[in-house]
Amino acid sequence: MKQVYDYIDAHREEYIELLQKFCRQPSVSAQNLGIREMAGLLVDELKTVGIDAEVCETDGNPILYGELKGENDGRTISFYNHYDVQPAEPLEEWLSDPFGAEIRDGKLYARGATDNKGSLLSRLCALKAILAVNGKAPLNVKFIYEGEEEIGSPHLHQFAEQYPDRIKTDGFAWEGGSKQLDTPEGVGPLEVCLGVKGLLYIELRCRTAVSDLHSANAAVVKNPAWRLVQALATMKDATDRITIDGYYDTVRKPSEYEMKCLETLRYPEEAAKERMGLDGFINDLTGIPLLEKFYYQPTANIAGFKAGYIGEGAKTVLPGSAVVKMDLRLVPDQTPDDILAKVRAHLDRRGFTDIEVVKISGEPPFRADPDCLFAQTVIRCAEPVYGVRPEVFISSAGTTAMYQFCHDAGLDAVMFGAGNEASNIHAPNENIIIEDYINAIKMAATVMVEFAKA
Amino acid sequence: MKQVYDYIDAHREEYIELLQKFCRQPSVSAQNLGIREMAGLLVDELKTVGIDAEVCETDGNPILYGELKGENDGRTISFYNHYDVQPAEPLEEWLSDPFGAEIRDGKLYARGATDNKGSLLSRLCALKAILAVNGKAPLNVKFIYEGEEEIGSPHLHQFAEQYPDRIKTDGFAWEGGSKQLDTPEGVGPLEVCLGVKGLLYIELRCRTAVSDLHSANAAVVKNPAWRLVQALATMKDATDRITIDGYYDTVRKPSEYEMKCLETLRYPEEAAKERMGLDGFINDLTGIPLLEKFYYQPTANIAGFKAGYIGEGAKTVLPGSAVVKMDLRLVPDQTPDDILAKVRAHLDRRGFTDIEVVKISGEPPFRADPDCLFAQTVIRCAEPVYGVRPEVFISSAGTTAMYQFCHDAGLDAVMFGAGNEASNIHAPNENIIIEDYINAIKMAATVMVEFAKA
Repeated sequence: MKQVYDYIDAHREEYIELLQKFCRQPSVSAQNLGIREMAGLLVDELKTVGIDAEVCETDGNPILYGELKGENDGRTISFYNHYDVQPAEPLEEWLSDPFGAEIRDGKLYARGATDNKGSLLSRLCALKAILAVNGKAPLNVKFIYEGEEEIGSPHLHQFAEQYPDRIKTDGFAWEGGSKQLDTPEGVGPLEVCLGVKGLLYIELRCRTAVSDLHSANAAVVKNPAWRLVQALATMKDATDRITIDGYYDTVRKPSEYEMKCLETLRYPEEAAKERMGLDGFINDLTGIPLLEKFYYQPTANIAGFKAGYIGEGAKTVLPGSAVVKMDLRLVPDQTPDDILAKVRAHLDRRGFTDIEVVKISGEPPFRADPDCLFAQTVIRCAEPVYGVRPEVFISSAGTTAMYQFCHDAGLDAVMFGAGNEASNIHAPNENIIIEDYINAIKMAATVMVEFAKA
Repeated sequence: MKQVYDYIDAHREEYIELLQKFCRQPSVSAQNLGIREMAGLLVDELKTVGIDAEVCETDGNPILYGELKGENDGRTISFYNHYDVQPAEPLEEWLSDPFGAEIRDGKLYARGATDNKGSLLSRLCALKAILAVNGKAPLNVKFIYEGEEEIGSPHLHQFAEQYPDRIKTDGFAWEGGSKQLDTPEGVGPLEVCLGVKGLLYIELRCRTAVSDLHSANAAVVKNPAWRLVQALATMKDATDRITIDGYYDTVRKPSEYEMKCLETLRYPEEAAKERMGLDGFINDLTGIPLLEKFYYQPTANIAGFKAGYIGEGAKTVLPGSAVVKMDLRLVPDQTPDDILAKVRAHLDRRGFTDIEVVKISGEPPFRADPDCLFAQTVIRCAEPVYGVRPEVFISSAGTTAMYQFCHDAGLDAVMFGAGNEASNIHAPNENIIIEDYINAIKMAATVMVEFAKA
């Protein structure tokens, strides 16, 4: 591997510039901004490693697919990544242009720098380096690039159904992952993640009048924001327990093994609180109970609430309509459609029939087999690159669309990548540590080489 | 009066163009938009009736003051109006430019067309007409034009304290007022209003993290929107009763006389529901109980709620902060500062010490003496102009700053003007019926002439 590592080090500026180029191209799926342009950049880039990518149209944004045969047509590794990004809002909280890709203090700042362009490129650049050094790939490689991950992968299943051969593989390197920050005490370990929570994204909508009205009418005209407040108040209690009827019915209790895994994790609670500016965690949790809630418990998050006048100063207005966006992270064996039905039934039972529940996206939770060859290989490869054993997570607290490719096809997927716990993904000032990006390239190269001969 | 009416009819185009000119100049106090420019236009216009207006600086926007001596220096009439307007947002719901002053089907559409530029100009144009016909004003006239009414008149009291002589008067014609719409059954009566509700405008602010976060953190990090929801849920019950501790303690029960006045009002319930697009009123109220709640009961309105991602599509974000704007309309003998203290105590008592309560503005309720000479004169003048007896309201459901001029000075104020129940004040597509504007000019002229000799 040394020759490959040396090559990567020698070409680091080239890889950084490539990441800047990608980050400067907005590709916000929620706002339909720059999607085709970004896909074009990716197709061009795949050409540089001799891959003639196919732009697979779906009912939404296209999925890009490319493959390269390896030396002896043996084992296959697949990389799932996404080229879309979250919206950059709130813009006023960014210290530099979200699509400027400015480098400050060893970090590159941009919407998508970590999620997911950094991890995406780390794998493509790894292949570039291997090909430059060895002339050929050590195994078959498949790249699948989605353009709708940030809006819940609504059309990924179309691809899985239409091209069952293309999702066949021996190991899925999924999307990306995090690394703990280095401290004066030592190097932060890479995080290897074997599963994800599911996600149900809904909007609760209420309209009580044809338009916003003078608030003098508030004495006699129903206020849709008050309706939503009163409905929401029935959905969670003061201890953060979700009180949607039946919400926990299908939640599988963590196994002894899963609980044991939590004990091996080093979650830097104080640093996390400081970084996020928190007084404390919910219910002042700490230690294993904190980790158990973080990784194994479902959520019901208010992601957005909009009603009436939200500008500066005072406007005495009675909103005509109001909207709440909620994301509910699900754990085995919850399913989006079952939870959606439970939300509807919960509201109906309490008379909130005037509140519309609109499903925006749904994704079931998924967990890979921790003992499979690919997972074990990834875990084994981390130490040579990072100098410290990785931390292994049974499930991320986040969500990706693993289920759609892996569940029916019986595949396993492993997440690892170029981010870290302070990357601010989905938040203002998203960034990637340049050194992590370079190490992620080395890690991806190592996994390819080692998995070929495992 | 006939000569004056004829003059007004002959000059209607001039008066309409003047209103268009005023409406095309934005003057949004909440957004500090066009305030000085609007004040300049007004000063110029006062010059045309020989008034050299004074621009009285305050700690906020200037108050314009002008006076004209009458024929025999007898009785004085004062006109309080405001030259600022509400924000035009939400812009996407306007059918024409809010500052375009487009005329369609006999209505002029603009932010401020009714509230308050139409009523303001009706009085100035009335004086123009009287002067043109008679050469001199029949009584002393004072004009007081405020530029911060729409943000709660925070500096009007400065003017009242600094210039006690200027607010001295025999009758205050306040701001403006409404008229019921004509129907096939007959002419809608002018509404004469003798009081207003108070207003406490506050923001409830909660910040739990330094910025918006990835919503995977929602399992362990407090959500400020959930905090506000849970706090708000303690402040109102399902029957719309406000449950802020002690909220109704100082609410004066309507007198027999006040209840009797409600019986004389013709509130077109079905037309109002249709116009506003309502299924029904709160608690399905109708008749006297509906009017009693509308005019005599306080409110606690959510005027705005902003948290997290409020754009199109899905963004899985945990908001770092959230804000609720509330306007609470107060009735005798509630006071803004007492209610503010009660909100704070209510939240503290329930552990919501992390929610900041910020007072944006406050205005006590006020009611004039229904038997005073000026009120009786205004009521008497309406029928000759409109052909039908006016409806008399003990209190408006809305708010203006009457208290600041009238309470300490022992003055009475009466509201009447050029609006109607479908003017959409504070809402998209605000408009004024051209004919109402012309009639309001005649009404103001009549009041001046009749009050001079009453």
